[in-house]
Amino acid sequence: MTIQAGILGATGYAGVELARLLLRHPAAKLAAVGSVSFEGQKLYDVYPSLRGLCELECEDAGAVIAESDVVFAALPHGLSQDTAAECVKAGKKFIDLGADFRLDDPAEYEKWYGCEYKYPALHEQAVYGLPELFREEIRGKSVVGNPGCYPTSAALGLAPALRAGLVEPQGIVIDSKSGVTGSGRKTTQGTHFPECNEAFSAYKVAAHRHTPEIEQTLSKTAGEKATVTFVPHLLPVNRGILSTIYARFKPGATLGAARAVYEETYRNEQFVRVLPQGAGVDIRSVKCSNYCDIQLYADEHTGLLIVTSVIDNMVKGAAGQAVQNMNLLFGLPEETGIDMIPMAF
Amino acid sequence: MTIQAGILGATGYAGVELARLLLRHPAAKLAAVGSVSFEGQKLYDVYPSLRGLCELECEDAGAVIAESDVVFAALPHGLSQDTAAECVKAGKKFIDLGADFRLDDPAEYEKWYGCEYKYPALHEQAVYGLPELFREEIRGKSVVGNPGCYPTSAALGLAPALRAGLVEPQGIVIDSKSGVTGSGRKTTQGTHFPECNEAFSAYKVAAHRHTPEIEQTLSKTAGEKATVTFVPHLLPVNRGILSTIYARFKPGATLGAARAVYEETYRNEQFVRVLPQGAGVDIRSVKCSNYCDIQLYADEHTGLLIVTSVIDNMVKGAAGQAVQNMNLLFGLPEETGIDMIPMAF
Amino acid sequence: MTIQAGILGATGYAGVELARLLLRHPAAKLAAVGSVSFEGQKLYDVYPSLRGLCELECEDAGAVIAESDVVFAALPHGLSQDTAAECVKAGKKFIDLGADFRLDDPAEYEKWYGCEYKYPALHEQAVYGLPELFREEIRGKSVVGNPGCYPTSAALGLAPALRAGLVEPQGIVIDSKSGVTGSGRKTTQGTHFPECNEAFSAYKVAAHRHTPEIEQTLSKTAGEKATVTFVPHLLPVNRGILSTIYARFKPGATLGAARAVYEETYRNEQFVRVLPQGAGVDIRSVKCSNYCDIQLYADEHTGLLIVTSVIDNMVKGAAGQAVQNMNLLFGLPEETGIDMIPMAF
Amino acid sequence: MTIQAGILGATGYAGVELARLLLRHPAAKLAAVGSVSFEGQKLYDVYPSLRGLCELECEDAGAVIAESDVVFAALPHGLSQDTAAECVKAGKKFIDLGADFRLDDPAEYEKWYGCEYKYPALHEQAVYGLPELFREEIRGKSVVGNPGCYPTSAALGLAPALRAGLVEPQGIVIDSKSGVTGSGRKTTQGTHFPECNEAFSAYKVAAHRHTPEIEQTLSKTAGEKATVTFVPHLLPVNRGILSTIYARFKPGATLGAARAVYEETYRNEQFVRVLPQGAGVDIRSVKCSNYCDIQLYADEHTGLLIVTSVIDNMVKGAAGQAVQNMNLLFGLPEETGIDMIPMAF
Repeated sequence: MTIQAGILGATGYAGVELARLLLRHPAAKLAAVGSVSFEGQKLYDVYPSLRGLCELECEDAGAVIAESDVVFAALPHGLSQDTAAECVKAGKKFIDLGADFRLDDPAEYEKWYGCEYKYPALHEQAVYGLPELFREEIRGKSVVGNPGCYPTSAALGLAPALRAGLVEPQGIVIDSKSGVTGSGRKTTQGTHFPECNEAFSAYKVAAHRHTPEIEQTLSKTAGEKATVTFVPHLLPVNRGILSTIYARFKPGATLGAARAVYEETYRNEQFVRVLPQGAGVDIRSVKCSNYCDIQLYADEHTGLLIVTSVIDNMVKGAAGQAVQNMNLLFGLPEETGIDMIPMAF
Repeated sequence: MTIQAGILGATGYAGVELARLLLRHPAAKLAAVGSVSFEGQKLYDVYPSLRGLCELECEDAGAVIAESDVVFAALPHGLSQDTAAECVKAGKKFIDLGADFRLDDPAEYEKWYGCEYKYPALHEQAVYGLPELFREEIRGKSVVGNPGCYPTSAALGLAPALRAGLVEPQGIVIDSKSGVTGSGRKTTQGTHFPECNEAFSAYKVAAHRHTPEIEQTLSKTAGEKATVTFVPHLLPVNRGILSTIYARFKPGATLGAARAVYEETYRNEQFVRVLPQGAGVDIRSVKCSNYCDIQLYADEHTGLLIVTSVIDNMVKGAAGQAVQNMNLLFGLPEETGIDMIPMAF
Repeated sequence: MTIQAGILGATGYAGVELARLLLRHPAAKLAAVGSVSFEGQKLYDVYPSLRGLCELECEDAGAVIAESDVVFAALPHGLSQDTAAECVKAGKKFIDLGADFRLDDPAEYEKWYGCEYKYPALHEQAVYGLPELFREEIRGKSVVGNPGCYPTSAALGLAPALRAGLVEPQGIVIDSKSGVTGSGRKTTQGTHFPECNEAFSAYKVAAHRHTPEIEQTLSKTAGEKATVTFVPHLLPVNRGILSTIYARFKPGATLGAARAVYEETYRNEQFVRVLPQGAGVDIRSVKCSNYCDIQLYADEHTGLLIVTSVIDNMVKGAAGQAVQNMNLLFGLPEETGIDMIPMAF
Repeated sequence: MTIQAGILGATGYAGVELARLLLRHPAAKLAAVGSVSFEGQKLYDVYPSLRGLCELECEDAGAVIAESDVVFAALPHGLSQDTAAECVKAGKKFIDLGADFRLDDPAEYEKWYGCEYKYPALHEQAVYGLPELFREEIRGKSVVGNPGCYPTSAALGLAPALRAGLVEPQGIVIDSKSGVTGSGRKTTQGTHFPECNEAFSAYKVAAHRHTPEIEQTLSKTAGEKATVTFVPHLLPVNRGILSTIYARFKPGATLGAARAVYEETYRNEQFVRVLPQGAGVDIRSVKCSNYCDIQLYADEHTGLLIVTSVIDNMVKGAAGQAVQNMNLLFGLPEETGIDMIPMAF
């Protein structure tokens, strides 16, 4: 059986990356693509890289849903809820690359996104789609909130230490740096080449919407409320996120213990590589792949565990992880269609 | 049957790109990798991107040949000849990514490379592996000279016009711009980041070793001696070549005629896209793929046909084309294992 | 006496670069800045680099003119003519960084820019402000058409050979590559970081508006009609233009003769450096300076003179040359305020 | 009187940046340049940007010292001590851009650099040359330890809060990102363009030699021992450092109080700009200038003060600050020769 997959918001960066992956997925077919802005145009008119590789024309949401077994939505927040409801009603799977199904607490969602949860029952059926941490909960679900890019790098980077009780869940500092595709396809002054190239800045300092999502996941793994100071930065590269995470060791905890826990946690994970001591992570080494590379350090004189964690923000941080979730929902081996080898350069 | 493939010079950029492709090739297995500088080390020690994906250790050439049905060599010029002879003797296929089997004329080779052809008989059996132009000659051969990166972009860009007699074969100007991976892995002052980033320069102006190779192919397709002024430039990007080609229209020839010829020539080619009028080529649209995109223009007030041609120098300009040749040698569909969709960004 | 200088279009890239130079000019004072889009805002609100360095607020054109002895205009084409007329009437100098005063022939202007010359008498008084070629004609004028960036690199690169009759004025090919600041401050999809970074493309192939300007200057220096095929490319760097120029040697002309002519022509020029044989030009070596570096090559087997010429498109290609013209108009040493040493990196 | 200035290690990046500044310094003359590797060559042979601007030839250290009133040394650590002693003996000023005169405690120097202080008396006369914090101590000294690039951004960013007792001096996290010129001119695999471009990594995590220097300055300003976790990252740009600094507010301290203290501290500083609320710092806005831009944030839910601080690592982080120190030593206005306006792009 071939899974018929549709993408809403296909002309955004996450959307076209999904298209790229699904066009080569051995068990799925890219059945339909949707776009509000480019309806009626070929996807390759927007992305010439796809010329000759995909003849699909952008359709409206209804048409995409009708042609699909699973619908991926890469839409502005707030717009996925109705679509999700419609998909569920029609017996389709729905994977949301936006923020509408990531937060458990409606109050947090309203606080950070300014919208309400319209279908509480729907949210109860939804699952947070970070397979390495919540694999068993994902299987069999119909609605998946695909994690944000920063939260993916942060959660994979810190969850094992928190779960094992090696670090304090309070006062965690996460200093993240993301490539510019994370800002999306829409042009802005700050992403205009001459103002972004040879530039570097922090943005939404301690005020980014991914903060509650990160705290939610870290709290779940810690078993108690975790608090995080999160500062994202805009990195003048196309792809990649590196998160540098600072957490306080609990008394008695050591780097050696942490290393053992991480290696054990991720031993059988296809997409997480805990590097041996002496190696360093680089966004270059996971580029265009679904990998997350992790390295651990201790600052003994200040008592901190330092974790560096890298992903490709467009793959493990968006489209790749979405396909990983699709594979889980449909009972396929998790790496199907997303076992790309990272570019070395 | 699975093809056992070996790579000599696997730790160079073309070598590791080959490894990346062969590790995902459905009909081949990366059986062995060779390196003089890193013998005894894992390939992933040199390229951490491969960690967990390839456990091969760099071996000496003899071991690599012994374990392989086909040997790819990405070696400095002059070093491939003995290896090729050895492979042929042992009944193996040999695909050379260096320059030792590209030029028909030993005098030209000696003039530009300062070495002699040691085994004239071997060269008579060798073929220039540009499948779109010489497909039938490649099948069944044992030794392939994989084309240079610049010559690939130039030949695909101009061959149809020359073959159809639309442009003069003399006085062609080819102004090419290549990403820095084309300079290889070895560090130099000119490729040191602060001196290469935000920089741009021409090099080996009208003196680059790819000139005779370009002239050879263009002469073959023109049916008479072609002369080319070739100027390469170093572009501050990792991957990609764009060649801007200027040729004089023969009397009566038109852009419309040229367009018709190109479309006809490449109609059934998997890896060449002649863009419709109004679209422009960009190295971005072929990145990490085996595609060559081509666009045509006329400057009517000066009587020139202008062709822009782009490839990924590491794929169609090196490793991808080498695999394409392997597929031809082994009777596989030509796109096997190299049907990657270009990155949109 | 201090020259009171005003800038119209001060919030564009050429405008703010002018501001940067004028703020440090020992004989001029930046008296007023104009902007339609940002009227009433401080210049540093648009360019935070200027915070603490310039308290000027953007005003309307009338106010700027009133406060200035010389007005620089960096406006869209067609808008400078009325302003120039107003300035001349008020006895002020006018230096236009746009295209309204570059072309002698009104028909060419209308053909390429779609506007008419409104004040023919004004154009007769205007001069094309390329000091190295037309220094004596500039002195004493009131209206200067500051050359385009590409034409500056092309004209300085080829004029000596044409003037000396060493190359044919027909069939010249100019393949230019420009940094992205050349496209201006306005955001576009093509200059959005993820689509411009790691990308490279030609644009307006044989159809760029700088073509008639280049031909005009080259024809003047050749003493006969010159024809040029001009192809610009967008280079993923902030600043810099490199032009690679191909011209056919006249019978008997040699590289040695050309070198002698260039060295003689530019011997006393402050801002043009003819490099010795063996050295290559690089946009890096003129960055943030008013220099033009030139190197010459011959392709003996095809009979071409090849010239490579680099400038900083924002300095010698725009703001720096404009100040050079101001210095000429006001009888100052030509290098006053623009003797910046190029960044090495 | 013109100061005769000499540079040892002039062919390194800090050295040539010093040359660039000194060649335009109104009260100093670049009298001599020294280089071990390039002795006998012109400086412009190594940096073609300087062609026509500086005819100096690289000499040995003795010759440079003899011709200079002040000697700048940009040498590998350990090599400056003898030179400093020689300069002092000869009555010359010595400004060390290396690490030999930065640390007060010989044990710390030995621990981090593996060398001993050879002339304890000399170190007692030396001063740490961060003018904004230690201006009065610098005047009249003969030996200056010019601060490291990271410590400059960190100290300017956090000193006011520590001095005012607003934050805890323990457990400070400094997450810094530096452009590649910070790694120097010597080629390495990690700074080879294809491996550095589109890449990002942390290095020397919690183990960088600038850590004790940062702690020393912060301890002095705090009046008690400060402890810092310092993690540097390599940013794929040429110039610039951004430090993101996390410190715990003391009870009762607020962002408003911190802002007031910073504004007061730096009110009369030429080279430090505390941005108003709502603006963000960017390395782009200080590029090629001696400025340090600072912004403050509070994360109220975790009780942290977050400071972002940017400098140009080659100017305020090296050559510019060295000239600032020279100006102090010679009684010149501090901004003499280093009042460059930042590039906007």
